[in-house]
Amino acid sequence: MRFLIIGGDAAGMSAASRAKRGMPDLQVTVLEQTRDVSYSACGMPYNIADPVRDMDDLIVRKAEVFRDKQHIDLRTGHRADSIQVKERKVTGKTRKGEDFEVSYDKLLIATGASPSIPRRPGFDLPGVLALKNLEDGRRIKRFMGERNVSRVVIVGMGYIGLEMCESLRARGIEVDMIKPGPVFLQWMNPELAAIVRKELDANRIGVHLGHEIVGIEKSDEGLRLLSKGPVLDCQMVLTAVGVLPNSQLADEAGLELGPRKSIAVDSALLTSDENIYAAGDCADAFHVVTGERAWIPLALRANRAGWAVADNVTGKRAELQGVAGTAVFRVFDLEVARTGLSMSEAEKAGFEPAETVIHSRSRAHAHPGSTTISVQMVGDRKSGRLLGVQMVGREGVAHRVNAPAVALHAGMTVEQFGQSDLAYAPPFSPVWDPMLTAANQLLKEM
Amino acid sequence: MRFLIIGGDAAGMSAASRAKRGMPDLQVTVLEQTRDVSYSACGMPYNIADPVRDMDDLIVRKAEVFRDKQHIDLRTGHRADSIQVKERKVTGKTRKGEDFEVSYDKLLIATGASPSIPRRPGFDLPGVLALKNLEDGRRIKRFMGERNVSRVVIVGMGYIGLEMCESLRARGIEVDMIKPGPVFLQWMNPELAAIVRKELDANRIGVHLGHEIVGIEKSDEGLRLLSKGPVLDCQMVLTAVGVLPNSQLADEAGLELGPRKSIAVDSALLTSDENIYAAGDCADAFHVVTGERAWIPLALRANRAGWAVADNVTGKRAELQGVAGTAVFRVFDLEVARTGLSMSEAEKAGFEPAETVIHSRSRAHAHPGSTTISVQMVGDRKSGRLLGVQMVGREGVAHRVNAPAVALHAGMTVEQFGQSDLAYAPPFSPVWDPMLTAANQLLKEM
Repeated sequence: MRFLIIGGDAAGMSAASRAKRGMPDLQVTVLEQTRDVSYSACGMPYNIADPVRDMDDLIVRKAEVFRDKQHIDLRTGHRADSIQVKERKVTGKTRKGEDFEVSYDKLLIATGASPSIPRRPGFDLPGVLALKNLEDGRRIKRFMGERNVSRVVIVGMGYIGLEMCESLRARGIEVDMIKPGPVFLQWMNPELAAIVRKELDANRIGVHLGHEIVGIEKSDEGLRLLSKGPVLDCQMVLTAVGVLPNSQLADEAGLELGPRKSIAVDSALLTSDENIYAAGDCADAFHVVTGERAWIPLALRANRAGWAVADNVTGKRAELQGVAGTAVFRVFDLEVARTGLSMSEAEKAGFEPAETVIHSRSRAHAHPGSTTISVQMVGDRKSGRLLGVQMVGREGVAHRVNAPAVALHAGMTVEQFGQSDLAYAPPFSPVWDPMLTAANQLLKEM
Repeated sequence: MRFLIIGGDAAGMSAASRAKRGMPDLQVTVLEQTRDVSYSACGMPYNIADPVRDMDDLIVRKAEVFRDKQHIDLRTGHRADSIQVKERKVTGKTRKGEDFEVSYDKLLIATGASPSIPRRPGFDLPGVLALKNLEDGRRIKRFMGERNVSRVVIVGMGYIGLEMCESLRARGIEVDMIKPGPVFLQWMNPELAAIVRKELDANRIGVHLGHEIVGIEKSDEGLRLLSKGPVLDCQMVLTAVGVLPNSQLADEAGLELGPRKSIAVDSALLTSDENIYAAGDCADAFHVVTGERAWIPLALRANRAGWAVADNVTGKRAELQGVAGTAVFRVFDLEVARTGLSMSEAEKAGFEPAETVIHSRSRAHAHPGSTTISVQMVGDRKSGRLLGVQMVGREGVAHRVNAPAVALHAGMTVEQFGQSDLAYAPPFSPVWDPMLTAANQLLKEM
């Protein structure tokens, strides 16, 4: 049997490895348009922070290992251009411009997502860069090394933009962030968002909200970003306005699309074609809270979905529960985490949400080093269900969010979650963990 | 209505405060035999570590606040000696030797637990101390200050003994631990227990297992602990061989007892007498995994049970789900956590348990500062249910254990838990959180 995979990143390579392990005589071919496979894309901002570290440190497994040890037919520099679903074949071009064609019995589309680039003049100038793949990471690092970059403008204020702030400040670089939208971290409760905003101010990041971008032009210093508000001079512009699913191949092949034009898949990761799976940032998922299709591109889901596809291809039926949208990121000394729905997402999904915001402590009463943890929790007035949690603090946030994430998978009510027997010791938590204090408080609001 | 509470610690005082808030005209009386109420008992080892800090820093709320602001009739130095259930009254003696008698409509027994003291000669000598209440804490700290203590022997190797190790070493004191049992951390998977043991060795703690204690005698240095193995000289002996529920009053009043002679209560915290509740370390609870009665004295349960009693007394029906036995403690640079059942507990409870031990990382591949996290996970072969988790590591353990704790409350299978959408970012976790890696591995063993 021939298992063909388009895309050699998280979803694609985990599918390839697991399928080969599960069925050693399976013929596994991977088409990857860049020269890199299997690297930690999420590690790039942290790598960029350190001028000495090699970007290739982020490579988890080298192409030769896949080829020589795992006997996977891994073809880098191969760009797939079309899928002929009836003939079950994929055609494309190599880097050298040669046409190729590969047949399949089962196909996995794992083409990921790409940064969306504002359609404004100047976003194609040298020094205007996005951070998607390892090649982008190398390019940014090389540019910073060669040009003695001292000022950077980041367009967009999502996870990657915020992580890049910290990374650039660590190298002594001045950073301005700008976006057209007037609200900082729109998905976040305003009280919590204000804490993150304050952390940016404390680290002297210029935050410019609500200014439409006009374009970028060359200047004496290097580049000049023009907006309907401030004019920002710099040597480098990073575009981080969000990503879009790479679903064009699937769309042209007539496959059904889901939210945000991601590729629609069922719980077994099968697309609308019985021989084609999709996994990773290009595919959608069911949200465990709403039960609806959602497009939330995150690394764990990509890996998990890759494995599930491999199991299905090799005859071990695997289905995935869905996603809760659990995410965490660091902004300087702050840990910021979320799981489930925000208030507005809950309203859109037809719930009658109530929310609470509490400020608790990271350690016990009188324990040295205790800092504030702020928690927002959302529940449904009708059913009593827990719908979502957001959290900000200087310690103990990143892993704390996993407890409500599990509760969302279990469909627990706020009351049930509030009865959870969570761990307590003075160096790690108050007797009532901040999660429980939030649940107790939210129950009063409901 | 008269609500009488015996015991002014976590369970008693949270019940008193909440009952008074819920029903301001309720007559609330608390009998506390010591002079201290409402302090963080779990904080004592950490307070002892610091010679400068005052033990009274651990007091969360002073007696006067309860009396003057909350109008609770708080009687410290009042020891209850008997409960007349028919007459609904409690009699006892004050510190000054005066008899007293208080009637009640509803009674809460919140008498806590006491350290068990080995019945061997010399355990009543000056310098042989236990750590139960704030007065004990003050006594230990005073003794250490006055006697220039340089060597301490700890009898027992439970949570408190281990926390005291760290605390004493922080003050430059040499520490030996001894216990008759041959197994270090008996409840713990041996591979994980060995990691904790190694941490004690690295911090030059003498660990003497499997030596029956003969007694303690005075010596030139101060005290000498005699065992059937080593003879240990020191200036102070700490007994930390575990605690026992203070259930004598309840027993003499004819109330039903549960495991380890704790006071048996239903999910509303009611004892076998319809007017008497019990809460805190003296009472039992239902275990959410086994459904059986269990005696697991921990601070969160005490506070939560106190609140539930207050709600029941003031007419707002409250029931508690039960406990998962979630606990965490720190031993030097290690975080040690558990939730649910160990292998032997699972076997005893009639499950067919399978276990796995995995060693993962605290941060992502290639992220600086990553350290090992070791996880043991237990599941039931018959039902597929998750039964318990144990974990050891230098960071990210304390809060990680809460995710499987919630899964135990929800009765999740290992497979369901393994599908949880947990948070990932390089500074905090590998893409597959150690919890998920353990679940994936355990599924193979089942």
